[in-house]
Amino acid sequence: MTQFSEALKGSITGEMEDVAGEEGITPEELVRAIARGRAVIPFNPIHSPKPMGIGERLSVKVNANIGSSMDMVDIDREVEKARVAKRYGAHTIMDLSTGGDINTIRRRILKEIDLPLGTVPVYQAGIEAIDRYGSVVDMGSDDIFNYIRLHAKDGVDFMTVHCGITKEAVERLKRTKRVCRVVSRGGSFLIAWMLHNGEENPLYSEFDYLLEMAGEFDVTLSLGDGLRPGAIADASDGPQIEELITLGELVRRARVAGVQSIVEGPGHLPMDQIEANVLMEKRLCDGAPFYVLGPIVTDVAPGYDHIVGAIGGALAAYSGADFLCYVTPSEHLALPTAEDVEEGVIASRIAAHAADLAKGRRQAVERNAEISRYRKALDWEGQIRLAIDPEKIRSFRKERSLRDDVCSMCGEYCAMKIVRDYFKK
Amino acid sequence: MTQFSEALKGSITGEMEDVAGEEGITPEELVRAIARGRAVIPFNPIHSPKPMGIGERLSVKVNANIGSSMDMVDIDREVEKARVAKRYGAHTIMDLSTGGDINTIRRRILKEIDLPLGTVPVYQAGIEAIDRYGSVVDMGSDDIFNYIRLHAKDGVDFMTVHCGITKEAVERLKRTKRVCRVVSRGGSFLIAWMLHNGEENPLYSEFDYLLEMAGEFDVTLSLGDGLRPGAIADASDGPQIEELITLGELVRRARVAGVQSIVEGPGHLPMDQIEANVLMEKRLCDGAPFYVLGPIVTDVAPGYDHIVGAIGGALAAYSGADFLCYVTPSEHLALPTAEDVEEGVIASRIAAHAADLAKGRRQAVERNAEISRYRKALDWEGQIRLAIDPEKIRSFRKERSLRDDVCSMCGEYCAMKIVRDYFKK
Repeated sequence: MTQFSEALKGSITGEMEDVAGEEGITPEELVRAIARGRAVIPFNPIHSPKPMGIGERLSVKVNANIGSSMDMVDIDREVEKARVAKRYGAHTIMDLSTGGDINTIRRRILKEIDLPLGTVPVYQAGIEAIDRYGSVVDMGSDDIFNYIRLHAKDGVDFMTVHCGITKEAVERLKRTKRVCRVVSRGGSFLIAWMLHNGEENPLYSEFDYLLEMAGEFDVTLSLGDGLRPGAIADASDGPQIEELITLGELVRRARVAGVQSIVEGPGHLPMDQIEANVLMEKRLCDGAPFYVLGPIVTDVAPGYDHIVGAIGGALAAYSGADFLCYVTPSEHLALPTAEDVEEGVIASRIAAHAADLAKGRRQAVERNAEISRYRKALDWEGQIRLAIDPEKIRSFRKERSLRDDVCSMCGEYCAMKIVRDYFKK
Repeated sequence: MTQFSEALKGSITGEMEDVAGEEGITPEELVRAIARGRAVIPFNPIHSPKPMGIGERLSVKVNANIGSSMDMVDIDREVEKARVAKRYGAHTIMDLSTGGDINTIRRRILKEIDLPLGTVPVYQAGIEAIDRYGSVVDMGSDDIFNYIRLHAKDGVDFMTVHCGITKEAVERLKRTKRVCRVVSRGGSFLIAWMLHNGEENPLYSEFDYLLEMAGEFDVTLSLGDGLRPGAIADASDGPQIEELITLGELVRRARVAGVQSIVEGPGHLPMDQIEANVLMEKRLCDGAPFYVLGPIVTDVAPGYDHIVGAIGGALAAYSGADFLCYVTPSEHLALPTAEDVEEGVIASRIAAHAADLAKGRRQAVERNAEISRYRKALDWEGQIRLAIDPEKIRSFRKERSLRDDVCSMCGEYCAMKIVRDYFKK
C-alpha cells in the first residue's frame, strides 16, 4: 500500500486528510492530484512524519539540506541544523552526510525531527567503496541497492536516485563542451563507475528492482539530475535535457508500479531559461512535481547564494516548480553552519511565498493582505505574528529601541500618519 | 547646456565618452539613446561625479538610499553609509536626510563621494514648515522651489520630484479602497498640503519653472511616484496608473525643454504584475528610464526585505527596468545601519547582474562564464577577483580554514575532481 495506490482506488488516507486540511483544499482534490501523479506525500510509515504534500494544488515547499562532510563530522551539529531548519519553516530535510557515522546521523534525525526526511543512498555506497577499496569505481551495484533498502527500512521518506544517467547520456556528455562537466556528487560517483566499468547505470538498468523496494516502503523517488548544469554557461544543454527525457519515461514506469515520484531540476540557470525549464519538465514528465535546486541565476555571488537562489526559486515556483531546495550563503564555499541553514531556509520560504502570492493562492493572499493591514495600523504584534521570521522583528525592535507609534525609518514624518487626518475631513 | 541638449545636436560630451567606454558600447549608440530620452547621465557639473549612465543599452544600475532621520542624527554615520554603499558597488546615492543639519550632510557627501547624488528637496521644505509652523500644510510653494535651487546649486545630480500627484489623482485616491493609502513620504507632504489648501500640486502646476531650474544645472529629474502602492493588495490600481500617465506627459515636456528625466515606479508589486508595470511605464512614458523601488514582492518578510527586493528587482530589470533602488533588511522596521546598507547594495547588485546576464549583455555573460571557469579550476583567487563581494569569500575561507584544493562542502568527494580522471581516458 502506498499513498499513490490508495489514491488510484480513490481511497483517502489519513495523511491525505491532514494535508488537504493544512492546504485549504478538499481531500477529493488532493486524491485526484495524487492519483494522476501530480502530487505526492513523502511518507514512509516506519518514520511517520507530519504529513506534507508537494505538487499540484499545493503551496510551494522548501527543502533544507544538512549533513556532515569528511572534514566536518559532528553528529549533534547536524541534528541541530535539522532542528534549526524546522524552526525556520523548512518543509522537508535532506541528510546528505558523507562523513563519520552516517547511519547514526540519519537515524537520530529520523527519531528527533518529524519532517519528511530525504537521503541520497548512493553517497554512502560510494564512500564505503572509497574507504574499503580506495575508489568509487569499485563499488558493487548491490551496494547501492543495499543502502537504498537500509535507508528505507530506517524510515527515510524520499530518496534522490540518479536513474536518468544512461550510457548514451554519458556519451553525449563526452561530445558536449561544458565549463563544469559534472557537479552532482551522486552523478559523479555513478559516471566514474560507468566509465571505468563500461556498464550501464544500475539505477537505470535495474529500475524495476528499485521500484519494488520503493513500493514496499512507500518511499517517494526523487529522480535526480546527475547531469544538471553547474554553470550558467552550461544551462539547458543536450545532456541535461536528454536526462530529463529519460526521467519522464521513468516517472511513467513508477506510476505503473504504484510508486510516488518527483523530478529534480537545475541547478544553474539564467533567469530567461527558468520558465522554459519548468515547462519542459511538466511536459516531458507528465506533470510530475518539479524539485529545483535553487536555481542559481548567476555565478558571481559566492557568499550570497541564498539570495541568488531566492531569485531563481521565486521565478521557478511562479513558473510552476513545486518544491525548492534551499541554497545557503555557504554554497560553493563550505559546508553550511546552523546560521547558514537559517538564512537559507528563510530566503527560500520568501521565494515560495512570493510565488504562491503571485499565483493568487488564497492562503498566501490573505496572509499578505493581513500583515499589510497590521502595518498600516502600526500594530507590531500583529506583524510579528504573521511574519516569516517573528524573532527577527522582535530583535530589531529591541536592539534598536524602536518606538511603537512610528517606525524609526521615517519617525514623525510617517507618510501613513501624515495623510490620515486629511483624508478624514 | 545639458547632456540631453548636446545629444540632440549629436555632440558627444566627455561624460558620454566615459560612460560608453565603461559600458562597452560606442559613443554614437549612447548619444542616440540620450537624444531619444531613453538614457540619461545624471551629472551636475558643479558636483562633477564619475560619469554614469542609466537606461537603454546600459547595464542595470543600483541606487543606495542613506540619510538621517529625526531620531537618528549623526553626520559622520551618514557619510560612512555613503562610503559603504560606494565600496560595495552602488552606482548612485540618494541622501534622504530628514533630521539634523540636512545641508551639511548633503554637502559632505557631495564633497567626499564621487557618485552621482540624488535628493528629495520637498523633504527639507516640509520639515522646515513643520519645525517653523507646526505643520507641513503651512509650507509655501516657494519653499519647495527654493530648496530645489539650493540643492541644484550645491551640485545635486538628480532629484525626486513628485510632479504627478494632481488634484484629480488625489480625488481618485479618495474614491479608491486601499490598504495603505499613501506610503511615499514626499507624496504625503504634498497630498496633505493639497487637501488642506485646496490647491494644485506646485510641482505640477509650475512644472515649467521646475524645468528651467533643472535645465540650468543639468539636474536629472526623477519623476516620483507619490501614489505608489504600499501593500501588495494595492498594486496597479487607478491612482498609481493615473499618476504614471501624468508622468509620461511630463517626460515629454521635459524633453522639449532639454531636461533629462527618469520615472520612478513601485514599490509593492506581486511577481505576476511586474512585467506589466514595466511595459506600462515604457509605453506611457515613451521609453524613459524606469527607476523601481524594489519592487517588494511580498509583505510578510520584514527583516529580509533586501531579499524580497532582490527578487522583485531582478524580475523588473529582466523585464526592462533600468535602475533599481536598493532595499535594506531594515526596510519597514528602522533606519538602516551601515551593515544594512552593505547587505542592501549587494542584494540589488545581484539582481541587476542576474538580469543583465539573462538579457545576454556581453559584459555580464563574459564575467559570469569566467568565474565559472575559475570555479572549475578551483582557482580561488580568480573567483575572488570576479565576485560581487571579494571580501566575503576571503573571510569565509579564512574563518573556516578552508583548503585550497577542494571546497569543504564536498571535500574529497568533489564531483568535478572525481570525474576529471575518467574523462581523460
